[in-house]
Amino acid sequence: MEKYFDQHISRQFNQELENLRRDVMKMGGMAEEMVVDAMAALLEGDTEKAESVIKADDAVNQIEKHIDEQAMEILARRQPTASDLRLVMAIVKTVNDLERVGDEAEKIARLSIELANTHRPRGNYNELENMAGHVRVMLRDALDGFARMVAEVAVSLFRADEKVDDEYEAILRQYYTYLAEDPRSTTRVINAIWIARSLERIGDHAKNIGEHIFYLVEGKDVRHTSSEEKEQVVLRDPKA
Amino acid sequence: MEKYFDQHISRQFNQELENLRRDVMKMGGMAEEMVVDAMAALLEGDTEKAESVIKADDAVNQIEKHIDEQAMEILARRQPTASDLRLVMAIVKTVNDLERVGDEAEKIARLSIELANTHRPRGNYNELENMAGHVRVMLRDALDGFARMVAEVAVSLFRADEKVDDEYEAILRQYYTYLAEDPRSTTRVINAIWIARSLERIGDHAKNIGEHIFYLVEGKDVRHTSSEEKEQVVLRDPKA
Repeated sequence: MEKYFDQHISRQFNQELENLRRDVMKMGGMAEEMVVDAMAALLEGDTEKAESVIKADDAVNQIEKHIDEQAMEILARRQPTASDLRLVMAIVKTVNDLERVGDEAEKIARLSIELANTHRPRGNYNELENMAGHVRVMLRDALDGFARMVAEVAVSLFRADEKVDDEYEAILRQYYTYLAEDPRSTTRVINAIWIARSLERIGDHAKNIGEHIFYLVEGKDVRHTSSEEKEQVVLRDPKA
Repeated sequence: MEKYFDQHISRQFNQELENLRRDVMKMGGMAEEMVVDAMAALLEGDTEKAESVIKADDAVNQIEKHIDEQAMEILARRQPTASDLRLVMAIVKTVNDLERVGDEAEKIARLSIELANTHRPRGNYNELENMAGHVRVMLRDALDGFARMVAEVAVSLFRADEKVDDEYEAILRQYYTYLAEDPRSTTRVINAIWIARSLERIGDHAKNIGEHIFYLVEGKDVRHTSSEEKEQVVLRDPKA
């Protein structure tokens, strides 16, 4: 991390970049909390908690705008080096993904309100609880990777995302069976499918953040490459 | 548009920005074609066409990387003014949305392969065909707005997106009824729901592009504001 912040002769510039980084971490924490609270609202049928998640999304949207503005101002006032540009670009892309995580959490909260007054299935959505746990770890790892600026996190997040995708497919197959077997529960099962879908998307966003960090640290764009290719880049590069 | 390109003393810089803009338009055209072909593949049960859409997604991903690289290089080599920065940022965000349009078209293509061998419903998915038509107009308007750099497109796209969202909700209600009435068609109807969902997302991305254009032209970030607020900004501002 030091290499991104100590190279600037201007202490004020360092401070500005540091503030930006801190805002991203704060936004990440907010988005993560929204996911946790949205799932708690689902599992406990707590519509008040769900409402608070819906409200929190505004704050996440506002902090995204603020970070974007600050990033542009830094670039406009300073003469950014190539690595500053990469840092700012990685930040702008990361907050875009975090904002979408907030959107998905808001969707889960809205669906949990719809589900609060319906019959609770056996297991009380524990398959969704498990999946949410895995996705939350991904989000945590992405933010931790951002804080420490480690490129390897891109590879581990790519792998974790593949597992979450498999889990998602398994949940869908299970839900399709329910739909075919019990037409009376259609609306409830469809809502549960949307929640699974939102969790899968949150995993995607965490994986994307890993790719932004990779790009920032290594200067290489690994979007749309396989995990093997990503790994080769990490292993080949003495910096990694 | 002229104001973005004629202010640079360096003709070469102008040329670089112009190339970038042309690449975005090219990418937009590719994404739009993918949507059109994916829907044709669905309606005609044409799996070969669907395969070509899946292949086209790679090309769209590669052009996104290329544009991102060029944008960064321009910023690194030149001393960008505030409006250059806005232009580059709007381009980077726009290609991000276009890339996701390509992803959604690819999903539709994959789903159309699964649906090709199933019983075709009465009406042959004409509700999806209609919705795709509206979404395609949105995408076209977004690209046209980008080419001409007109801020007002943000307002009209916001309105169009609200209509498409209503259409989407109506289609979902219809499909939920099918699910409850005929459990044997569960998989087919679920696949059709996913297609509707992808179309709805494509509309969102077109709307997002309108917001990036607005930000570029007006210097104001109108994400997460209502259509009334957007309209006020447009009306208040003598430039608009």
